[in-house]
Amino acid sequence: MLTLYDSADSGNAYKVRLALAHLGLPYERIALDTDNGETRTSRFLATNPNGKVPTLVLDDGEVLCESNAILFYLATATPLLPDDALERARALQWMFFEQYSHEPNIAVSRHVLKHLELNRERRALVESKREPGYRALGVMEGHLSDRAYFVAEQFTIADIALYAYTHVADEGKFDLEDLPAIRRWIARVAGQPGHVLITDH
Amino acid sequence: MLTLYDSADSGNAYKVRLALAHLGLPYERIALDTDNGETRTSRFLATNPNGKVPTLVLDDGEVLCESNAILFYLATATPLLPDDALERARALQWMFFEQYSHEPNIAVSRHVLKHLELNRERRALVESKREPGYRALGVMEGHLSDRAYFVAEQFTIADIALYAYTHVADEGKFDLEDLPAIRRWIARVAGQPGHVLITDH
Repeated sequence: MLTLYDSADSGNAYKVRLALAHLGLPYERIALDTDNGETRTSRFLATNPNGKVPTLVLDDGEVLCESNAILFYLATATPLLPDDALERARALQWMFFEQYSHEPNIAVSRHVLKHLELNRERRALVESKREPGYRALGVMEGHLSDRAYFVAEQFTIADIALYAYTHVADEGKFDLEDLPAIRRWIARVAGQPGHVLITDH
Repeated sequence: MLTLYDSADSGNAYKVRLALAHLGLPYERIALDTDNGETRTSRFLATNPNGKVPTLVLDDGEVLCESNAILFYLATATPLLPDDALERARALQWMFFEQYSHEPNIAVSRHVLKHLELNRERRALVESKREPGYRALGVMEGHLSDRAYFVAEQFTIADIALYAYTHVADEGKFDLEDLPAIRRWIARVAGQPGHVLITDH
């Protein structure tokens, strides 16, 4: 059985739960409290030296980290990842975009505003994320303006990776009102058979 | 012929040049000056709406972005990427680590210290990158303490991705003196047949 170390509110962990749900794979879930140092214990660091969730432990004890690498592993040879080399690289392109240009702005704003007490430094941090966060959403909006999904005209792990924090962007005070293609895509992803919510655990 | 949009000093662009050199693939190089807005022109944004180098244009005009997605595409079915699904996911794990935990600290420090005039805000930015940057280097040091390469006991695109900014970490004032496994690995990567320097272009 797969074992998933995750945390209740992490969008990165939700990506993996969502992929596992679509693939119908059973797993044991171990929830860690990231705000209280549970990913920094020596026991957890022995499993993932980078001290982050999600971390997946396979049947044979092998460990895999980084949400989007886990998605790629789980989705290989399934309908969630195209076989074509260029389309597969395109899925990865959007997943690297997610981790570099999207998550550090939108997920970090959400985390601060939802879980931490605001002080001057944190207000400045959130403020600094607005322009690059909206820029990332603008890139997504342009791409989705004439497409149903990000890659290969089918629902893939690129959609799962980008959905995780986009559908809760309002919790980081990012307004999707003027981004209709993103809103339609969110509804399309949420309407997939087998969909689970970020709060389902 | 492949066309690579890059910039002279970008480690992300260097990753692609290094992989192309190892694979013996010819390409045309178009250097853009990122500090002078050449990745933000409407012409370039029509090629890559995210306005970043490297951007690769394939023979048939198809465009691929994000350095590590480009590496994955170029390395598929070559000795630079293992065939095994788990090892391939592990290579991706280290490449996502590079883009999330390493590059934003080490490359950004290097860029500010090497190319921009220091003011109070930029000094604070560089200062904020020191602890997470050394933490990322510590994760690498631990992993390399009993391994020659990051994945599958062979030289792969995970090494290329992490080498790009690690071997010039001193330009971001990260000292590798106390990280002997990283220093040995740097020498090992630089000693690969077909290696090119970040300044070779």
